Amino acid sequence: MASTIRLHVDHPLGAGQTVPLSQPQAHYLFGVMRKGTGEVVELFNGHDGTWTAEVTEAKKKAGALACIDRIAPQRNAPDVWLLFAPIKKQRTDFIVEKAAELGAARICPVVTEFTNAERVRQDRLQAHAVEAAEQCGGNFVPDVTEAAKLGSVLAEWDPSRQILFCDETRVGVADVLDGKQGGPWAILIGPEGGFSDAERARLRDLPFAHPVSLGPRILRADTAAVAALTLWQQALGDWA
Amino acid sequence: MASTIRLHVDHPLGAGQTVPLSQPQAHYLFGVMRKGTGEVVELFNGHDGTWTAEVTEAKKKAGALACIDRIAPQRNAPDVWLLFAPIKKQRTDFIVEKAAELGAARICPVVTEFTNAERVRQDRLQAHAVEAAEQCGGNFVPDVTEAAKLGSVLAEWDPSRQILFCDETRVGVADVLDGKQGGPWAILIGPEGGFSDAERARLRDLPFAHPVSLGPRILRADTAAVAALTLWQQALGDWA
Repeated sequence: MASTIRLHVDHPLGAGQTVPLSQPQAHYLFGVMRKGTGEVVELFNGHDGTWTAEVTEAKKKAGALACIDRIAPQRNAPDVWLLFAPIKKQRTDFIVEKAAELGAARICPVVTEFTNAERVRQDRLQAHAVEAAEQCGGNFVPDVTEAAKLGSVLAEWDPSRQILFCDETRVGVADVLDGKQGGPWAILIGPEGGFSDAERARLRDLPFAHPVSLGPRILRADTAAVAALTLWQQALGDWA
Repeated sequence: MASTIRLHVDHPLGAGQTVPLSQPQAHYLFGVMRKGTGEVVELFNGHDGTWTAEVTEAKKKAGALACIDRIAPQRNAPDVWLLFAPIKKQRTDFIVEKAAELGAARICPVVTEFTNAERVRQDRLQAHAVEAAEQCGGNFVPDVTEAAKLGSVLAEWDPSRQILFCDETRVGVADVLDGKQGGPWAILIGPEGGFSDAERARLRDLPFAHPVSLGPRILRADTAAVAALTLWQQALGDWA
């Protein structure tokens, strides 16, 4: 059950390319995982595919690798964004992790009228997305945006990007997605208290927003995010 | 955003029926939520539908309610079981919570060759399932079984219950479920390390077991459980 260590790096990858490690990566690879020079890991940067790379320098707080072979082509996330109202810290972390695994191009915390959450730290959530991408074997990392108000997000929305918004309705996801084309799409998940009447009215007025239901029970926001992304991936994404 | 308190009770429900509260429920309702006599909550027991009930007695460690009206008929979970190899405590709790929300009739921790988890406490997981059922508005609670070895579970398996087992394969869930009928079904999720070769061979030999893939990335066990249940519910369950 030995699994290969996979690292996301912000550096070009190519045959013979030397890639420096950040201090936390060097600590993880050499301190925690006890790897040394000559050992092989996998690298990706979201552009150049997945590469094997050999450790050429292993210090306590720094290190370097040399790329060997490209073992997988670059494969980007399908063009679906996940917009969600942040909730409790642990469940927000969970949503970001799951969105990276299931495959989203962008993860956008949006503040709605009934959003009741601590401050969202974009850097921490982005780090979670990187970790999930390293873990799941993909070679892209979703961009996590800074939290923004739902009203402002909708005011600047590109109408060519359709929105699946999860709400109390009788329309199933399949009914909306059947026969539709892939991206650009977005999935919008409300907070635990739901959308306000004003938000709901505004969303229902948008020609590119489609209200959908996720079954007969009331799902928590984190469950709804995973369920909606799954159904989208199955219908229009890279799971087909 | 006032939401009604919903309690699962082990007691018959019916017009005028008096329902005693357990000590933890009395503590929650009167101590934590500050409810008192005359206030109305919702009750369900997994058999008699959902009832409104009025608090008739509110003591520190005990209490009673009187049923008023049946506001929803009994609606049981679709006949799908979730079998999963327990993982870390927090993620195991999460799987149980999500299975109750998404709708499973039974939740079965199964110990596989590569299962690496602390002891599973059935009573704690069952309590999680009750809490999730109270939260999600359904009126059934999935049964959580004691952990059992996968081999023993399969040895006693009723072959009329088909198994969707999530494995590395090229077959999508939709390809297996299209045209199939609803329950009895089960979903089987392996541990983080996957199934052993022997387990995989045994499962693939079972005529009622169908290997399926959940997209091109490697999902964590908790993500896989939610994704597979979602796709099953959409295809054959009560989400259609």
